[in-house]
Amino acid sequence: MKIAIIGTGIVGKTIASKLVELNHDVMIGTRNVSDKLTSNEKDTYGNPSFNEWLKANNKVKLGSFAEAAAFGDLIINAANGGNSVTALINAGAKNLAGKVLIDIANPLDFSRGMPPSLLPGLNNTNSLGEEIQKTFPETMVVKTLNTMQCGLMVNPKLVGNGDHVNFICGNDESAKTKVRDLLNQFGWPDKHIIDLGEITGARATESLLPIWLSIMGIKKSGVFNFKIVGI
Amino acid sequence: MKIAIIGTGIVGKTIASKLVELNHDVMIGTRNVSDKLTSNEKDTYGNPSFNEWLKANNKVKLGSFAEAAAFGDLIINAANGGNSVTALINAGAKNLAGKVLIDIANPLDFSRGMPPSLLPGLNNTNSLGEEIQKTFPETMVVKTLNTMQCGLMVNPKLVGNGDHVNFICGNDESAKTKVRDLLNQFGWPDKHIIDLGEITGARATESLLPIWLSIMGIKKSGVFNFKIVGI
Repeated sequence: MKIAIIGTGIVGKTIASKLVELNHDVMIGTRNVSDKLTSNEKDTYGNPSFNEWLKANNKVKLGSFAEAAAFGDLIINAANGGNSVTALINAGAKNLAGKVLIDIANPLDFSRGMPPSLLPGLNNTNSLGEEIQKTFPETMVVKTLNTMQCGLMVNPKLVGNGDHVNFICGNDESAKTKVRDLLNQFGWPDKHIIDLGEITGARATESLLPIWLSIMGIKKSGVFNFKIVGI
Repeated sequence: MKIAIIGTGIVGKTIASKLVELNHDVMIGTRNVSDKLTSNEKDTYGNPSFNEWLKANNKVKLGSFAEAAAFGDLIINAANGGNSVTALINAGAKNLAGKVLIDIANPLDFSRGMPPSLLPGLNNTNSLGEEIQKTFPETMVVKTLNTMQCGLMVNPKLVGNGDHVNFICGNDESAKTKVRDLLNQFGWPDKHIIDLGEITGARATESLLPIWLSIMGIKKSGVFNFKIVGI
């Protein structure tokens, strides 16, 4: 499948590597292609520059937001939560129309310190997932994978033998079925995928971020996930 | 220990029964004592009236909010989230001063339908736990137990042999130690109690309610809890 990833951060790179491993055809979209191809700036975590990463992952194509969106039959939003809507507008509504868009971003606001809050206007009675769906009514937005660290997204067996959960929500059932199939390829069995219904469910999953980040601060590790224990 | 519970709902009753079983001396505070003693109205879930419950749990005392708060060496807020601050104001700041107050309420707003949101002004960059702490600066507020159904609060072994978590937060370390001791009596070992730090951590635990309620809707049962699976 031709898959476009919006965003060149650690989430975008991790998903891209996994998709290539699964023999998908991947293009990452970025704001400024030539900047990305010439900059040797390390990322926030001290990892090699995107440019270095791209040389080591040479099956991944790089294009503008619009080129990537036009290329992909499926779009994955892995941009920073606060920049996601703008990046997708730059990708172009016509390039996104009629396609499934997986949104794995979170509208985090670290500007007020810790614990982080969610961005004004994108919390409680709204969410980033819903905002993207409202902005692109012809696109089928599916929210998933946003409640965990990216290593776990593509390798749930990394902890607890994979016995923990991933949430999914979206208005279009056939889109959720397609995304579920991709999640299966990532290693998520159906029994660990909890369907929260329509895209409004994104309010609930994005609301997990404050506690996720608090727990990460305590454990000094993001390599954990939630399991539901119950009858 | 003399313990006051603010609120006559299912949470207050469940906690009261458990405290009596643990040989604590319990008074429940309510807005109108004579109403509660004469009404035979069933509760929201079709359970017997509070009056009936009280006859069957005759070691529990009933008083006004202020009488209960004056009685208790420890206060537990189990009132409806939206009414909590008002109920505690009626209980009287002087009756709460110098005492530990356990807040297990959630500022839920069902007025906009499902999924529920959190009350305006008590979400994202604020929380009910913090609001209570700000309103009663001489009281040591500890938020805990608010992320699960009340049966599990006092009997964690009800599911998964108790292998799931309860969060705690509050500004005063000695208050948290006292509350942790009570949680141990309820059946929570220290290893399953995650300390999120200061009372601002209540933002994170109250933010779990939207997903908790969504999962309850799917499972048609509230008898489940979160476990953290990780390294």
